[in-house]
Amino acid sequence: MLQNDVFRTMDRQECLRLLAEVPVGRIVYTRHALPAVLPVNFVLDGDSSVLLRTSAGSDLLRAVDGVVVAFEADSFDAVSHSGWSVVVTGPASAVTDPAEHERLLRTGPQSWMPIQEDVFIRIEAAMVTGRELTDLRGAV
Amino acid sequence: MLQNDVFRTMDRQECLRLLAEVPVGRIVYTRHALPAVLPVNFVLDGDSSVLLRTSAGSDLLRAVDGVVVAFEADSFDAVSHSGWSVVVTGPASAVTDPAEHERLLRTGPQSWMPIQEDVFIRIEAAMVTGRELTDLRGAV
Repeated sequence: MLQNDVFRTMDRQECLRLLAEVPVGRIVYTRHALPAVLPVNFVLDGDSSVLLRTSAGSDLLRAVDGVVVAFEADSFDAVSHSGWSVVVTGPASAVTDPAEHERLLRTGPQSWMPIQEDVFIRIEAAMVTGRELTDLRGAV
Repeated sequence: MLQNDVFRTMDRQECLRLLAEVPVGRIVYTRHALPAVLPVNFVLDGDSSVLLRTSAGSDLLRAVDGVVVAFEADSFDAVSHSGWSVVVTGPASAVTDPAEHERLLRTGPQSWMPIQEDVFIRIEAAMVTGRELTDLRGAV
């Protein structure tokens, strides 16, 4: 599953449709000059961004506010060796507009964990790429 | 699930035991100065490294050979909001020793995809961190 030319590339709409089906993805960023990755639950805000909910004092917020990050989700079947992965790449930023924050408190993602001073992080879906791995065993 | 202080931190041995239970993880690196992430199937080589199998001409090999990467695997239950995640951080490098390469052709990971000119990438487990999220709903 490492070879680009045997995957089927998916278009943006198909990628977003699959993203909407899973509750957890992984935000990829840099921390202390090292690659870092953290699983987070999320929701899509229309077709333009990924939304996360965290605490105002979190390490994650400090690390990603204002920088370009990647956000990945996938689903694979170990038996059939099939599945898909989607990566959203774009700038992450805390939602600072009060009206927007208020709206997201009602309609945004619910964290799986207790939160102190809710902050929403929006990742703009500047680039959305995805690929599907189909079960090749029968086709060989 | 974003708040560090409500997770249980796992020790290295527990992290490696969980890693051994899943077939797919995600390698996290930098490509064209942007954060990048790619799901890959893998095996552990003892308790010291993660092994991937790819093609000699792959973009992945070019991007990660000789640099520090992160490798993440996780398992979450969306119903109970419980699960775990493990991150291995360390230098990645192609296996160039002929005897070692020969050994891995027999005992190393089998790629889920057809491979051209097999190359093994070893990620040294210089740092292994992990945390477990338990179902808190009943405890509140």
